[in-house]
Amino acid sequence: MRIIVYGVGAIGGVVAAALALAGREVVGIARGGMLDAIRKDGLSLRSSRGAEQATFECVGRPSEIEFRPDDLIMLTMKGQDTGAALHALRDAGVREQAIFCCQNGTENERQALRLFPNVHGVTVMMPATYIQPGRVAIFVEPRFGMFDIGRYPGGIDDADRAFAEALEAANVAAFPMEDVMTSKFGKLILNLGNIVQAAAGTGVDTSAISKRAREEGRAVLDGAGIAYLDIGDNDPRRDEYMRSVKLEGETYVGGSTTQSLTRGTGTVETDYLNGEISLIGRLHGIPTPINDRLTVLSAELVGGGKGAGSMSLEELEAYIQG
Amino acid sequence: MRIIVYGVGAIGGVVAAALALAGREVVGIARGGMLDAIRKDGLSLRSSRGAEQATFECVGRPSEIEFRPDDLIMLTMKGQDTGAALHALRDAGVREQAIFCCQNGTENERQALRLFPNVHGVTVMMPATYIQPGRVAIFVEPRFGMFDIGRYPGGIDDADRAFAEALEAANVAAFPMEDVMTSKFGKLILNLGNIVQAAAGTGVDTSAISKRAREEGRAVLDGAGIAYLDIGDNDPRRDEYMRSVKLEGETYVGGSTTQSLTRGTGTVETDYLNGEISLIGRLHGIPTPINDRLTVLSAELVGGGKGAGSMSLEELEAYIQG
Repeated sequence: MRIIVYGVGAIGGVVAAALALAGREVVGIARGGMLDAIRKDGLSLRSSRGAEQATFECVGRPSEIEFRPDDLIMLTMKGQDTGAALHALRDAGVREQAIFCCQNGTENERQALRLFPNVHGVTVMMPATYIQPGRVAIFVEPRFGMFDIGRYPGGIDDADRAFAEALEAANVAAFPMEDVMTSKFGKLILNLGNIVQAAAGTGVDTSAISKRAREEGRAVLDGAGIAYLDIGDNDPRRDEYMRSVKLEGETYVGGSTTQSLTRGTGTVETDYLNGEISLIGRLHGIPTPINDRLTVLSAELVGGGKGAGSMSLEELEAYIQG
Repeated sequence: MRIIVYGVGAIGGVVAAALALAGREVVGIARGGMLDAIRKDGLSLRSSRGAEQATFECVGRPSEIEFRPDDLIMLTMKGQDTGAALHALRDAGVREQAIFCCQNGTENERQALRLFPNVHGVTVMMPATYIQPGRVAIFVEPRFGMFDIGRYPGGIDDADRAFAEALEAANVAAFPMEDVMTSKFGKLILNLGNIVQAAAGTGVDTSAISKRAREEGRAVLDGAGIAYLDIGDNDPRRDEYMRSVKLEGETYVGGSTTQSLTRGTGTVETDYLNGEISLIGRLHGIPTPINDRLTVLSAELVGGGKGAGSMSLEELEAYIQG
């Protein structure tokens, strides 16, 4: 059983390195400088264990892989790139393989299920950072993070159990769940603050605005009859598995949206986070003014070439009022 | 009130030309040779009325348009291009304008509603053909076709009524509907035969295979509790508004999937037709073996560079059996 890690960024990088270090067969799919670096020297994983150098096969696109029936495929690209990735997988011959959607949001699973029959949702709790090509870091201990795992739309199967076993061997706490989407919707609620933090900058206290976005999000899920778990700071597993650590000389640059803006990646995933709340609200006739504004804000920050931390709290507040 | 026609192909071309000929203000968004031809000489609409030359403003992308609050925007690109089109509209400043999804399938509305609050579904019944850059033809009379129109997910508003009025003036029969998605799901069932016809070629009798795909599709919608109308040959409006005509020297080259394969466009919309049935079936635990195979067939025809009519009925039958 190989694990294909499609998208070797922060999350994909930590998982690929940890699996390879645990002796599992990994094939990464990466781009640009990251691909070159991994092919040349492997991938450096910085953690509370120190710096470890992982080596594994890495390619530039799915068509370079001869897929096998028992491959497990992890999707770790950003949500806005999922559609193209799924088509590239199908064109490369993927048919019945298990596909694990490890991204934020709840739309990737639906997109994958249109093309493939065996789709799984994964809630990724893993504060990882892409430091530079060839280097990633993970800022929690004793485990590198926690993954909730299950079939989409529901159930647990052998692929979930095999993936969980591999993750546990790689120092990632893994929890197969009958209804994994309740966990992913819980993560969605947490992620509604990502764009706020990205706009104001890491270290600025944006909790008041994020709280309002999350309250609106919970009202929408409640109104739509969508169940969700609290997987935030109240989740007791966090104390056991995911205690924050400082790594000398390395800085956690914040959530995935902040990392996208910081690296000037050009697109952010807000359409699939705050935009998901807007969509569900519009489908059920529930107003979502705050998440609507935050979704447009994200587009305007990217369109205007604005980086992370480009707005003050006052500007943010005024923007949300419209 | 302007009508923006985003995607001037067969359908978009007939509608844009008919609206312009009726004196309505139209702005087309087109590509390549079609854009050049319209800018140079306008668009020729061949119908039972003869050949008429329509002139209207045409641009290459939304960013070339200064959008106004009362613009109505028709999406007439193929479903696989909708995501990029929606982002281009938002980047060009579109916010609250009414967006009419005129494509096949039922996913475009959902994609649009994620980014925009005022989204409408349109069932397009219009056997049009893109003959060459600058020329389109419509093969029915006395009207150029029939459009069912309504807000997504439901309701009728002033934008629907304004759009219907403009269409009626342009010789398109328009029917505002409280629950337009029942009509669009009815069209989806009809469209399940598109890939079969495209694979076998126009003129080949593929009704037996298409019938099985449609029966499977209806079973999925029934099982999922999704309502749909019969808008096929049993729809009495067809006799009144849409009687087939022959146009000397012009050939109707078949449905949208056939036209894509014939023109070698490289992508077809099957993922949003047969693939929609597969998706809904998988979400509800209903097997969809025929539509699964037809969706993969479409990908393989495109991937293999195969044009329309490249398979015999026997080959098709064997393929569907797996």
